[in-house]
Amino acid sequence: MKKIALEGTNVFADGAIKKYLIHDSPYFKIINFNIKGGETFPVHAHNLEGQLSMQVLAGTGEFLGKGETAMPAGPGDILISDISEPHGARAITDMRILVTIAPPI
Amino acid sequence: MKKIALEGTNVFADGAIKKYLIHDSPYFKIINFNIKGGETFPVHAHNLEGQLSMQVLAGTGEFLGKGETAMPAGPGDILISDISEPHGARAITDMRILVTIAPPI
Repeated sequence: MKKIALEGTNVFADGAIKKYLIHDSPYFKIINFNIKGGETFPVHAHNLEGQLSMQVLAGTGEFLGKGETAMPAGPGDILISDISEPHGARAITDMRILVTIAPPI
Repeated sequence: MKKIALEGTNVFADGAIKKYLIHDSPYFKIINFNIKGGETFPVHAHNLEGQLSMQVLAGTGEFLGKGETAMPAGPGDILISDISEPHGARAITDMRILVTIAPPI
């Protein structure tokens, strides 16, 4: 049992995406990405079994999917996606997302 | 791929815990518990493989563990626990938590 404070990884970098590994185990991996406003976490997919959740902690932007798919994304919004399905995110303002991947990749 | 808004389950009940299933799949289960201030999500454990994350979305309280274990818990705090390890939560103010269980139980 361990406690982690996401406030500890509330750091942004100009023109970039900061990545913080919050937790990793045989069961799931949890990563905090802080995407500077205007930046895009590129759409990608892995040919693997499993799913991920992508939760907006702060800021606004869009969840991205296959082709031109884009859904408004703000605090409290969660995207569920297969790992094998194209997924990404675009930040309008500085945007923090928490990604949980099961099983971990 | 689907999007869920946690704002849609921001509901509390006097003297009780509201439970909303956010997502369920062979890979993980995501549940939102809204615990009225003063209420306790009792410490419990299941004799199963796997882990869970318990993330505070709003409100303050304590993460509970084995015996007298209690850790302050506020927005952005995450508890990681084995499913087989005693875990629970106590709300001081109205407290929303998001629990992700992998694999689902």
